[in-house]
Amino acid sequence: MNHQITIKNRLWIVRNDHTFLGEGRVELLQTIDQLGSITKAAKKMQMSYLKAWKLVQSMNMSSQKPLVIRLSGGKGGGGTTLTEQGYKAINLYRDICQKNLEVTQHFKQRLLEF
Amino acid sequence: MNHQITIKNRLWIVRNDHTFLGEGRVELLQTIDQLGSITKAAKKMQMSYLKAWKLVQSMNMSSQKPLVIRLSGGKGGGGTTLTEQGYKAINLYRDICQKNLEVTQHFKQRLLEF
Repeated sequence: MNHQITIKNRLWIVRNDHTFLGEGRVELLQTIDQLGSITKAAKKMQMSYLKAWKLVQSMNMSSQKPLVIRLSGGKGGGGTTLTEQGYKAINLYRDICQKNLEVTQHFKQRLLEF
Repeated sequence: MNHQITIKNRLWIVRNDHTFLGEGRVELLQTIDQLGSITKAAKKMQMSYLKAWKLVQSMNMSSQKPLVIRLSGGKGGGGTTLTEQGYKAINLYRDICQKNLEVTQHFKQRLLEF
């Protein structure tokens, strides 16, 4: 009998029963932050630009302040960047995940009974 | 702008990447415990007997000791009952859910920024 027994946890932050943040959305925010572009982030995450754009719209509309904004003009012709609210969203989501992970550690011993 | 923002959490206990316990499975265990029968539990949960039976088999096979057993013979012709291991499984799952819920309470204030 092996003991490869683990706890899996999925977390969503919802507003009026609609997803505001989930694992995929937060990953998208982080990838946009790394690459400075929705197009490049979509490509890296193997999703269509339209899907990525819709997810960003949904997050921006679900928050009191936008998480992602377009910088227009300037040298290089602008790009896409996270706002302070965007970073707060990533940190909040990751902090809750981390706390939940810590909780699961407390149950390791009891898990071994199965 | 409304503040109907909440954290949702789904929890699974998995063995070698296969589900051992999840919300539906634990609910099934609790219903079998209430009604003393897989058939009645399946009906109450609006699933087929076959599906309920397969879920019970899966849980029993994923654990070192069975969670659900059939009592055969005797007055009334037996029935189905939870073992001590079955009650432990329900309690473990519910305890982890409860702890995760407590964690989410700590983030209420930060959620309101969105």
